[in-house]
Amino acid sequence: MEGRHRIRVRYGESDQMGVAHHGAFIAWLEEARIEWLRQRGLSYRELEAQGTLMPVVELHLRYRRPLRFDDEVELATEAIPVGPSRVTFRTRLLQEGELYAEGEVTVAAVGRDGRPRRLPPIIAEAQSRGASKPEA
Amino acid sequence: MEGRHRIRVRYGESDQMGVAHHGAFIAWLEEARIEWLRQRGLSYRELEAQGTLMPVVELHLRYRRPLRFDDEVELATEAIPVGPSRVTFRTRLLQEGELYAEGEVTVAAVGRDGRPRRLPPIIAEAQSRGASKPEA
Amino acid sequence: MEGRHRIRVRYGESDQMGVAHHGAFIAWLEEARIEWLRQRGLSYRELEAQGTLMPVVELHLRYRRPLRFDDEVELATEAIPVGPSRVTFRTRLLQEGELYAEGEVTVAAVGRDGRPRRLPPIIAEAQSRGASKPEA
Amino acid sequence: MEGRHRIRVRYGESDQMGVAHHGAFIAWLEEARIEWLRQRGLSYRELEAQGTLMPVVELHLRYRRPLRFDDEVELATEAIPVGPSRVTFRTRLLQEGELYAEGEVTVAAVGRDGRPRRLPPIIAEAQSRGASKPEA
Repeated sequence: MEGRHRIRVRYGESDQMGVAHHGAFIAWLEEARIEWLRQRGLSYRELEAQGTLMPVVELHLRYRRPLRFDDEVELATEAIPVGPSRVTFRTRLLQEGELYAEGEVTVAAVGRDGRPRRLPPIIAEAQSRGASKPEA
Repeated sequence: MEGRHRIRVRYGESDQMGVAHHGAFIAWLEEARIEWLRQRGLSYRELEAQGTLMPVVELHLRYRRPLRFDDEVELATEAIPVGPSRVTFRTRLLQEGELYAEGEVTVAAVGRDGRPRRLPPIIAEAQSRGASKPEA
Repeated sequence: MEGRHRIRVRYGESDQMGVAHHGAFIAWLEEARIEWLRQRGLSYRELEAQGTLMPVVELHLRYRRPLRFDDEVELATEAIPVGPSRVTFRTRLLQEGELYAEGEVTVAAVGRDGRPRRLPPIIAEAQSRGASKPEA
Repeated sequence: MEGRHRIRVRYGESDQMGVAHHGAFIAWLEEARIEWLRQRGLSYRELEAQGTLMPVVELHLRYRRPLRFDDEVELATEAIPVGPSRVTFRTRLLQEGELYAEGEVTVAAVGRDGRPRRLPPIIAEAQSRGASKPEA
């Protein structure tokens, strides 16, 4: 059920602490959501072209261990519908099975007029096993 | 008690939805924290030079209304110590008194060896009136 | 004739070399162009709203000395029309009169259909004294 | 002789013109340089750990056609040594053989003290066939 995606930390994503800047994770989580959709046959680009946008309404990240430039990171993502037009994507960032960070990003399905739309079926029907027990 | 800082949304911070990308807010909140310190006589650059780093350990953002390229936004920030070496900065993003987004970013004071350090006194002693009643 | 604008290097714009990442300069130059227009009464936001876009077609940067987190930098910008629908903005990045970097960014005025448009008069008529003698 | 690397345009790299922002290309070129090195057995991370940094001293980009969110782009990179401690990486950004953008980025090999160092042999000896005839 989980989507899997890998990223590699870019040089420009490091900061003067010598680690990946906390802001860089936002782009990775976004990439992970888009790949989650693609792996289920849904192109977010086409979804937008057809008039459904999915802006972020809330995000929550916990940073456990530093990631560094050139690290390869695995992103394990599941989708948890939280209403007819909202879904929370939960992503864990892993290296060799160890948790480095985790985050939840909630997006709303809306039309170009800003009005709520029903989630695409592939998202609405996501059965996220284990979704009810967030990592402690 | 609150720090006030203004930013203007950069063109490159917009995305193809025509609004400020949710990732751009991270840099603004960081700027707001650094200005909060500066307004109290503390240079974060000097703090790091003296061996105290303040990496982000958690962040939580709620997006209420879209911001757009060229918008000027007021960031109202307060500091809420949450332990001897941790502090949560709470920032509200406002235009003409209206709330556009709000976020909490928790940072830990650590040495270059990664060990916890006591918060600088100016932070440890911050009395955030109203800190106990988060916006609903 | 020159526009003047100041920026401060953001923490997230530093990289693990301990200096401002070369990519960060792009956003500063963009901000400098937009302020150059604003200082002459032209809002780039309104220009776009009225159907004239100014995409970048070429950029050229030379990095002379490193800039660091929290540095305040002065950007001195002049506009050099290079055709009926193209203009090169030349910006020097200065600290206390010393040159830290300089760049030229050429933008094209186009409509939403991608066709060339005449430059707005305030740009077309820019007389950049000294424009013909680039810094050695 | 060329290195090949693929990237996919991130959502946050789009701007309100609906195309990839010109600043995003900088990170892609950087990734392409690092992969060029990796494909020749050289880890830039290790190079830095051993005391050789390669800061960018000059960059020059020409944007030919717009790239869009979700586009997959091929980056074809060659290295052109331009002195004992400097090298220019020339990268063409392609989709289905068509040129979308091209850029040259010159980096200098320096020690942590900022003094020039000789280029690593794998770079110094790069024979870029065709390097002398830049695209018109």
